[in-house]
Amino acid sequence: MYVAVMGYGTVGSGVVEILSKNHDSIIKKSAQNDIQIKYILDRNEFPNDPNADKFIKDFNIILNDDDVKVVVETMGGVTPAFDFALACLNKGKSVVTSNKELVATKGLELLDAAKRNNANFLFEASVGGGIPIIRPISQCLAANEIEEISGILNGTTNFILGKMINDNMSFEDALKLAQDNGYAEKDPTADIEGFDACRKICILAALCFGKHVYPESIHTEGITKITLADIAYAQSFGSVVKLIANAKKLDNGKIYAIVSPAIVNKSSQLAGVDDVFNAVLIKGDATGDVVFYGKGAGKLPTASAVVADVIDCSNNLERRKDFGWDDYVEDYVIDHLDKELSLYVRAKTNDTGSALASIHNTFDKATILNRCDAPQDEIAFVTPIETERTLRQKLDSINDITPLSVIRVCDC
Amino acid sequence: MYVAVMGYGTVGSGVVEILSKNHDSIIKKSAQNDIQIKYILDRNEFPNDPNADKFIKDFNIILNDDDVKVVVETMGGVTPAFDFALACLNKGKSVVTSNKELVATKGLELLDAAKRNNANFLFEASVGGGIPIIRPISQCLAANEIEEISGILNGTTNFILGKMINDNMSFEDALKLAQDNGYAEKDPTADIEGFDACRKICILAALCFGKHVYPESIHTEGITKITLADIAYAQSFGSVVKLIANAKKLDNGKIYAIVSPAIVNKSSQLAGVDDVFNAVLIKGDATGDVVFYGKGAGKLPTASAVVADVIDCSNNLERRKDFGWDDYVEDYVIDHLDKELSLYVRAKTNDTGSALASIHNTFDKATILNRCDAPQDEIAFVTPIETERTLRQKLDSINDITPLSVIRVCDC
Repeated sequence: MYVAVMGYGTVGSGVVEILSKNHDSIIKKSAQNDIQIKYILDRNEFPNDPNADKFIKDFNIILNDDDVKVVVETMGGVTPAFDFALACLNKGKSVVTSNKELVATKGLELLDAAKRNNANFLFEASVGGGIPIIRPISQCLAANEIEEISGILNGTTNFILGKMINDNMSFEDALKLAQDNGYAEKDPTADIEGFDACRKICILAALCFGKHVYPESIHTEGITKITLADIAYAQSFGSVVKLIANAKKLDNGKIYAIVSPAIVNKSSQLAGVDDVFNAVLIKGDATGDVVFYGKGAGKLPTASAVVADVIDCSNNLERRKDFGWDDYVEDYVIDHLDKELSLYVRAKTNDTGSALASIHNTFDKATILNRCDAPQDEIAFVTPIETERTLRQKLDSINDITPLSVIRVCDC
Repeated sequence: MYVAVMGYGTVGSGVVEILSKNHDSIIKKSAQNDIQIKYILDRNEFPNDPNADKFIKDFNIILNDDDVKVVVETMGGVTPAFDFALACLNKGKSVVTSNKELVATKGLELLDAAKRNNANFLFEASVGGGIPIIRPISQCLAANEIEEISGILNGTTNFILGKMINDNMSFEDALKLAQDNGYAEKDPTADIEGFDACRKICILAALCFGKHVYPESIHTEGITKITLADIAYAQSFGSVVKLIANAKKLDNGKIYAIVSPAIVNKSSQLAGVDDVFNAVLIKGDATGDVVFYGKGAGKLPTASAVVADVIDCSNNLERRKDFGWDDYVEDYVIDHLDKELSLYVRAKTNDTGSALASIHNTFDKATILNRCDAPQDEIAFVTPIETERTLRQKLDSINDITPLSVIRVCDC
């Protein structure tokens, strides 16, 4: 069985490496056919690569070679990845991708093309890198009604927050360190603004709840406004600050979905997820809480997930896997302000006594927080649970304080 | 597609419940055929059960009904479960089981029968209850060489140790509480002596390393000798005591495998696994550390794993899954005394000063531990890393101390 790899960057070269290094054990343990790489598509030259003879620059060679049954897309981005993937599926070739942007924005179209052509479109590596998540959700948890997904889906932001929590490092210094360690891109926007996590929760929500969710429909906040003061208050509250992606099925058939920093109690399985690790917590009606934890990124972890999909395609040529994932419907994702939750608030005030009185007047049972060395004009508290809309309106009505940070409290 | 369920106890009745309650979503999301229960085999009467008309007492009805393609074995034990499962496989029916004893002792024979008859023998529920483990290992991690598995595989003992660690409860009181809560059997031997965890690590080792491992070949210690003093010393060492099942591939093609209480550093992902939860940590050469966490037992979690296997069988009638698992070979599991590790030792001494001198003379760089309110004649320390055999010989050579507890230090 012949495979073509499109894009010889970090993940693509990892796929080639694993398929070479673990070839024999893969065939023994899992693959029912031999798996050989026939082409590697990349615009760059790799004259000294052990696979130098396999490099091509013309996509049509792959498309028109009927021996190539599985195509790995590790180019990233939507253009031309989408056109290439679609063309391959339309030729009856199966496509495996690690490209979360492609799956989150074009997944439905590609799954439809796979269905029409009795081919497979698999994307285990698009969420959680090397952690098996997509297949356990679609197969192992098939007997469950999944009620909620919560996850730490971005290793870069988790690393930065970890440095802030454990080493008292500022956001800027921690970001710099992440960049120096190769955990963050030169332009870190997609990570630190939450866009990367947003694409992943779209994919998970589609799989778990059966309808495509587009990134634009999910309220997304990054971690750039988190300060060491917020981290200290969270700690005083037995909690840590994490970037949490969450999607929850509601009784009315709609879903709540959000990506935002959140105050996570230390008793949560997600609180202890440190460094660049990812974790996904799935609540099923039968199985209860299940957590999948591991490295969410990196060359070999991600490539190993791609290779697992290649093996799956190779064992299921002409047998399609159906993910049962329908089109998006309008207003499927509710306005995040309609969700009931509690908020952590850090604010400035000129008159602490009067501010405290106002807070207690406005919120029934607010919890006032303390931290060492807080400036005299700072006040912090956690509200009781009401809709976010009501809480924000009430906050606006308190004239004695100027909110500096408002962070959702997570019940995951 | 018709299914028969053999054994209407906790798990079997859960299987029937989930297949009824989630029937429509299972068909929509995952199953390519309709799934209906045709028979329930049990020696007891269930006249008021909604499925009363499906109960039978004669196994041959299932065996001889060609419409029954998948048989669920939730009877437990080896007799007659093995004979029934084998007969079904020999008739070309697929068999799904939650019975770890059956898989650990007869897995190879049943997999062989499945292979000969082009049927499936699946057992996701036999390890980790509702946590997807077997399928992720065999499929998602197919691209990895798995190097080591470490797990908390028994919820009962984890609950007991948790009560000792967090509530300072004695072993006896914690066991009583576990029994009162339905977490431990009246005869708790299989749990507290480690036999249950042993069966599960046998199954995982077979899957990960490709050869059957029998429970008798694994050194197994339970938690009955763990005291609150040991828990306190572990805490002083930044650690907790957990019942850890471990299997590790060695360079010579053999494996090390053990079930025993272990001192686990709090930085380990396994240290924070509390209550009746289970967790399995897999080290792959490509993916790094991956952890699966969830409820390892209980009616609906376990039943949901059985149902996932039923769906898988239903979608793969006449297509066999190969787990690539060979026969056991002699001396495949090394003598556990040949493993290099460090030991925690708590001992009695009549002369602390002389004992300390002996310990430091015998062990290069032993770490002496302290706890509040220790009796004057007690001494505790952690040895450096050497083979367990050497460490035990050295311990025996120290005349000034009488060891009360010796616990392995886990590097997971």
